[in-house]
Amino acid sequence: MVQKVAIVGVGHTKFGHHDDLSIRELAAEAGFAALEDAGIANTEVQMLSVGVASGSMSGQLSPAASVADALGIAGVPYYRSEAACATGSAALRTAYAHIASGFVDIALVVGVEVMTHTPTKVSTDYLAQMGDMEWEYVHGITFPGYFALMASSHMKLYGTSEEDLALVSVKNHKYAFYNPYAQFQKRISVSDVLSSKPVAPPLKLLDCSPLTDGAAAVVLASEELARKLTDTPVWIRGMGVASLNNLIAERRDLASIPSVRLAAKIAYSQSGFTPADIQIAELHDCFTIAEIIEYEELGFAERGKGAQLVREGQTELGGKIPVNLSGGLKAKGHPLGATGVSMAVEITKQLRGEAERGRSVSGAQVGLTQNMGLTGQYSFVTIYSR
Amino acid sequence: MVQKVAIVGVGHTKFGHHDDLSIRELAAEAGFAALEDAGIANTEVQMLSVGVASGSMSGQLSPAASVADALGIAGVPYYRSEAACATGSAALRTAYAHIASGFVDIALVVGVEVMTHTPTKVSTDYLAQMGDMEWEYVHGITFPGYFALMASSHMKLYGTSEEDLALVSVKNHKYAFYNPYAQFQKRISVSDVLSSKPVAPPLKLLDCSPLTDGAAAVVLASEELARKLTDTPVWIRGMGVASLNNLIAERRDLASIPSVRLAAKIAYSQSGFTPADIQIAELHDCFTIAEIIEYEELGFAERGKGAQLVREGQTELGGKIPVNLSGGLKAKGHPLGATGVSMAVEITKQLRGEAERGRSVSGAQVGLTQNMGLTGQYSFVTIYSR
Repeated sequence: MVQKVAIVGVGHTKFGHHDDLSIRELAAEAGFAALEDAGIANTEVQMLSVGVASGSMSGQLSPAASVADALGIAGVPYYRSEAACATGSAALRTAYAHIASGFVDIALVVGVEVMTHTPTKVSTDYLAQMGDMEWEYVHGITFPGYFALMASSHMKLYGTSEEDLALVSVKNHKYAFYNPYAQFQKRISVSDVLSSKPVAPPLKLLDCSPLTDGAAAVVLASEELARKLTDTPVWIRGMGVASLNNLIAERRDLASIPSVRLAAKIAYSQSGFTPADIQIAELHDCFTIAEIIEYEELGFAERGKGAQLVREGQTELGGKIPVNLSGGLKAKGHPLGATGVSMAVEITKQLRGEAERGRSVSGAQVGLTQNMGLTGQYSFVTIYSR
Repeated sequence: MVQKVAIVGVGHTKFGHHDDLSIRELAAEAGFAALEDAGIANTEVQMLSVGVASGSMSGQLSPAASVADALGIAGVPYYRSEAACATGSAALRTAYAHIASGFVDIALVVGVEVMTHTPTKVSTDYLAQMGDMEWEYVHGITFPGYFALMASSHMKLYGTSEEDLALVSVKNHKYAFYNPYAQFQKRISVSDVLSSKPVAPPLKLLDCSPLTDGAAAVVLASEELARKLTDTPVWIRGMGVASLNNLIAERRDLASIPSVRLAAKIAYSQSGFTPADIQIAELHDCFTIAEIIEYEELGFAERGKGAQLVREGQTELGGKIPVNLSGGLKAKGHPLGATGVSMAVEITKQLRGEAERGRSVSGAQVGLTQNMGLTGQYSFVTIYSR
């Protein structure tokens, strides 16, 4: 019987370009906001779990100690977890395991990334170096290329179109407009997406999440402590963690991401919820095609029918399963280490009824986050409830 | 009541220069050896915890997926933990928390680092970038410099001499001679150390651990599974994790490392053992002064009396508390991500009575490992017993 764990505080910086802020400063802003929201002092934190995907982009190669310093935290355990673009979820998992095991009763999780301080070409290269250096990077592939292969395959197998992909981007921008923390508070149209610069065909610039600086933080607590600290704990009801064979050349089906399905299966099983119970979800739309495949892997749509969901508006507010009302990675932004934590912040706000007007699911009781690293090698699906 | 967890398998590569091997290959060698030692297949691993301190030195920026691939592990959770030079212990901690929480019953921990594929000056700079970039690196300090400050302070306060520091190096080289996995299987003398090239006075080249390539792995299992798998489980009896304020300029006393004392206090308390019960220890001798200070923080010597212990030969085989019979970081080598795991391998071999002739503590029942990152910001002390 795993101990119950809840989110009792959240914090978030504006996502976007922070030319003058380092990971220390971004982490401090989000971290202190989460502590304040939880009503605890930094001296009450029993463990600090830090998520930073790339030391190279910020130049701070062992970032946990600097993040701790910026937060005035010392004495207690702290270290960093890393799982590429799912780094934030890995940091959350580490803290969750520390509480579930009884090692600590309360932990602060801070995810942070600085990605715009290096030139875009350099950042893109650092990202590509997260792929396998010996078997894939050497051939010149970068992440837009990986996801372009997946998009092409999904289009060929299931008739998904470039317009379908564009609809994901348009939807996510639509809701980012109402999210003050989003990088792009700007609506776009299908024709904006279709006419944007080709990046890796069929993916265009507006199919791709941006480079982003930002931080997000949550305070996790044991059941006993959570009930003392807040009247609105948001419980972790299930967390599935799964992986996928690393090399894309060895995958039989590029139009699916089996690790997402497996992680979801575990999370559903632990929580007792089914896809029909989920009232709001934050999915990993690093590229538009990812969100469509994820609908299918999470059981929101049948295999091959993901595009239909967005075509019908079922993942909009008021639809069957609203997805990425935060703006998603596409429009809220995607600071790698922060993203998984930001998803937890968003679901917490939604379940507490604190999401901003225009993007709030009224009365939501059950939410889901899905975060992945690389092309699904690292997969995390978490289910939360009031 | 935290669940009991044991080491049931160990693996280790030769430490040293592996010009032609990548982290994939080193990780596979150590990882498969640990699985074979545990008598399980890669398909039976329920979680893979990876320790790599620096993606920059190997060029593989998100290494866990590549390590998993090399080991033929997919489907199950894997990600990376990082705590600078204590990265291996952080990876062990993550796996330990996963088993103690009941998330999984058996986990493979692989620590690996490649440090000699980049020129020494570049590697030294990457290491320095693990220190705080904004407040310390900018002033030009590197790790030999940090530890030189600590050595100077200890010498001034307690009369520790350059010869005392040299004795630590001589002892550790003496035992590395018998360790086939050590980087330097070569005895040295006090005068060799004293006449070696100054690095950061009072520290000379032979006071410093080297740049090393290598990997180490352990299989951790829950109590129930451990008893099924082996007749010689080595139990984790306590693991203290602690930290220290980050900036050396803010420390009142450079001759102590309070996080080591705190982590030890926790580990002693959890295990019920006292310093007098420890029959063998592996300590973090990144620089010779560190081992002397650690004797004091761990309760093997009184404050200021660390040097006396090595002068009297009490940390040699046959002494009160044999330390670093593996050769330590100094002579066995210090591949950052592997070091903490390597310490666990060493204590397991010692407690199983499998350490090589000339460096084996006969009949040892209780052992301790102490691993730290940076100048003690990350501190881990673990106590094991038969």
